[in-house]
Amino acid sequence: KHFTIALVPGDGIGPEVIAEGVKVLKTIEELDSELSFSFTEFPWGCEYYLNQGKMMDDDGINQLRHFDAIYLGAVGYPGVPDHISLRDLLLRIRKSFDQYVNLRPVLLLHPSFTPLKDKAEKDIDMLVIRENSEGEYAGTGDWLYKGKPEEVVLQTGVFSRKGTERIIRYAYEEARRLNKTLTSISKGNALNYSMVFWDEVFEEVGKEYPDVTTYSYLVDAASLYFVSDPERFEVVVTSNLFGDIVTDIGAGITGGLGLATGANINPEKDYPSMFEPVHGSAPDIAGKGVANPIAAIWSVSQMLDFFGEETWGKVVLDTIKGLTVETENLTPDLGGKATTNEVGDRFAEKLKEK
Amino acid sequence: KHFTIALVPGDGIGPEVIAEGVKVLKTIEELDSELSFSFTEFPWGCEYYLNQGKMMDDDGINQLRHFDAIYLGAVGYPGVPDHISLRDLLLRIRKSFDQYVNLRPVLLLHPSFTPLKDKAEKDIDMLVIRENSEGEYAGTGDWLYKGKPEEVVLQTGVFSRKGTERIIRYAYEEARRLNKTLTSISKGNALNYSMVFWDEVFEEVGKEYPDVTTYSYLVDAASLYFVSDPERFEVVVTSNLFGDIVTDIGAGITGGLGLATGANINPEKDYPSMFEPVHGSAPDIAGKGVANPIAAIWSVSQMLDFFGEETWGKVVLDTIKGLTVETENLTPDLGGKATTNEVGDRFAEKLKEK
Ligand SMILES: CC(C)[C@H](C(=O)O)[C@@H](O)C(=O)O
Ligand SMILES: CC(C)[C@H](C(=O)O)[C@@H](O)C(=O)O
Repeated sequence: KHFTIALVPGDGIGPEVIAEGVKVLKTIEELDSELSFSFTEFPWGCEYYLNQGKMMDDDGINQLRHFDAIYLGAVGYPGVPDHISLRDLLLRIRKSFDQYVNLRPVLLLHPSFTPLKDKAEKDIDMLVIRENSEGEYAGTGDWLYKGKPEEVVLQTGVFSRKGTERIIRYAYEEARRLNKTLTSISKGNALNYSMVFWDEVFEEVGKEYPDVTTYSYLVDAASLYFVSDPERFEVVVTSNLFGDIVTDIGAGITGGLGLATGANINPEKDYPSMFEPVHGSAPDIAGKGVANPIAAIWSVSQMLDFFGEETWGKVVLDTIKGLTVETENLTPDLGGKATTNEVGDRFAEKLKEK
Repeated sequence: KHFTIALVPGDGIGPEVIAEGVKVLKTIEELDSELSFSFTEFPWGCEYYLNQGKMMDDDGINQLRHFDAIYLGAVGYPGVPDHISLRDLLLRIRKSFDQYVNLRPVLLLHPSFTPLKDKAEKDIDMLVIRENSEGEYAGTGDWLYKGKPEEVVLQTGVFSRKGTERIIRYAYEEARRLNKTLTSISKGNALNYSMVFWDEVFEEVGKEYPDVTTYSYLVDAASLYFVSDPERFEVVVTSNLFGDIVTDIGAGITGGLGLATGANINPEKDYPSMFEPVHGSAPDIAGKGVANPIAAIWSVSQMLDFFGEETWGKVVLDTIKGLTVETENLTPDLGGKATTNEVGDRFAEKLKEK
């Protein structure tokens, strides 16, 4: 089986961590004669923007269309406003390819990584399913009377029946498949249109899944429980913005963004899906060889799952877990002394041992 | 000096905790011959709604208008949809009385209360200033094609120049007065109108406060840092929705909603301000005498500060701190065995000892 992968390493530490992920894929190619990958690299990002005046080629979306997957590093750079760099590259890909499911595991790999007292691996083990195509991120709004005292700025969240129902249905299916509870996070008491609608759809679709136990939390309460009581959550479904926020709390309780991955999925496979570490480009540490590649390697595990190679997906995740006990072989953010490159090498070694 | 206080105990545990706060105010009256309070109780809330078809009297806002302060317990009840109960009472008061500043201290009272490893009181000590009158809570939206496949629901955040500037200015003043850093929390990389505007205003107003050190974080990163690195934050300013979320994370890292207070301030004193524990009505424990009254008592401290009685405000907060070391005298949520009433009595005792 052959899979084509578009690499968009992007900015800052992006290229450094993507290199380690590619190393893992190449190691798997060596180990499994039935599997092969081809890589095509795209130089898009903020440097490209500074030279070319655009974040990606005008027909960039077309160039990516026929790949099996996109593997993205990080986007963002001092000097390029975030609402340009992100909206024109990362968010554009998510939207153009209708990657409406964002799968973000929140999983404690090792008790030493959590800032919370008395938590073991089993206490923090959830899958957050974030709506990834519309909602608060629709980009719709207006800016009136600029510079005048009556200036007013509007930002409109757009929640369609189709968009809301498909993500909620996806989450119910996933909860059923995994035999886990499903928690919806919304905010109907204040967001009196969008979130009242969300809650209605959650209840309505739920009627088709009487076997799935459900909970519904307000986003503020859920944010508190992520910290005080993460055991409550198994599969979680929520809107684009709330998913953005709670998965970062999730990263917080599991050891930081160096350990957070996200898969941007188009389940119908009409378009390529995209796999990315959640962290940013971290310009302050770029080029120093200290970036933690584990999130990027975890993205590879998600990619393999998506390719239907779940056995390999699991091997990669288990190897990550095995590596995290060897503190000295980790990057400084996790208390180790290894470089990005050394972590990748050690990882490949361990993979070969299996 | 005499202050008139409107009591709106509300639902569930609201009346139980407000009773303890009133006990504190009456104790202060006894101890300080220069101070007196009068209380007028309003029976509004969900029970009222179930009997009268409305959360408060039609002219309720007028009835409250001439009080010096409103002291609110909690609102919400099974059987009354939250978007009715909250919008028609709590949010209506905030909005009608232009209580555009929501002051929420995030303060660790005792190391045993935090679920975080290795944190002392000094590590978690911030003041979150939440915009409280507009933004995401404007209540503006539309619901089109209900029940059809093309159904679409819109929720519009409204950020006015006046509303954005005044809260940011208030925060700069507060940071200057307290000689602390100021952190703005926004999300300009995704919310391309409202939050880009917010960031501009934050920078612009900042030019008038060159002495104040500022930081600006994305809401997702800030949410992570609240957990991994709360030491970063001193004074924080943010929008209505983001303030709602991050202050609940704040409650999470300091011991839960039983210890979280909020002051809804109209700084110009054109209208009464409102003081409330942040927790909900907790119908599951209502009537059992186990509700934690500390948040409600802390609200009294905020009320006294607002009345210009900062000495008493500080005494109440210090007494709370003193009480929190006596675990056996606390409610079960904090590991104690005391009832709501006993905590209030013990508190009054300690106040008299001072
Ligand atoms: C970079 C930013 C636009 C993005 C988001 O808000 O979705 C990021 O925070 C994420 O979580 O993937
Ligand atoms: C009850 C709810 C409407 C309210 C809010 O969202 O503001 C509450 O969560 C709060 O934080 O005061």
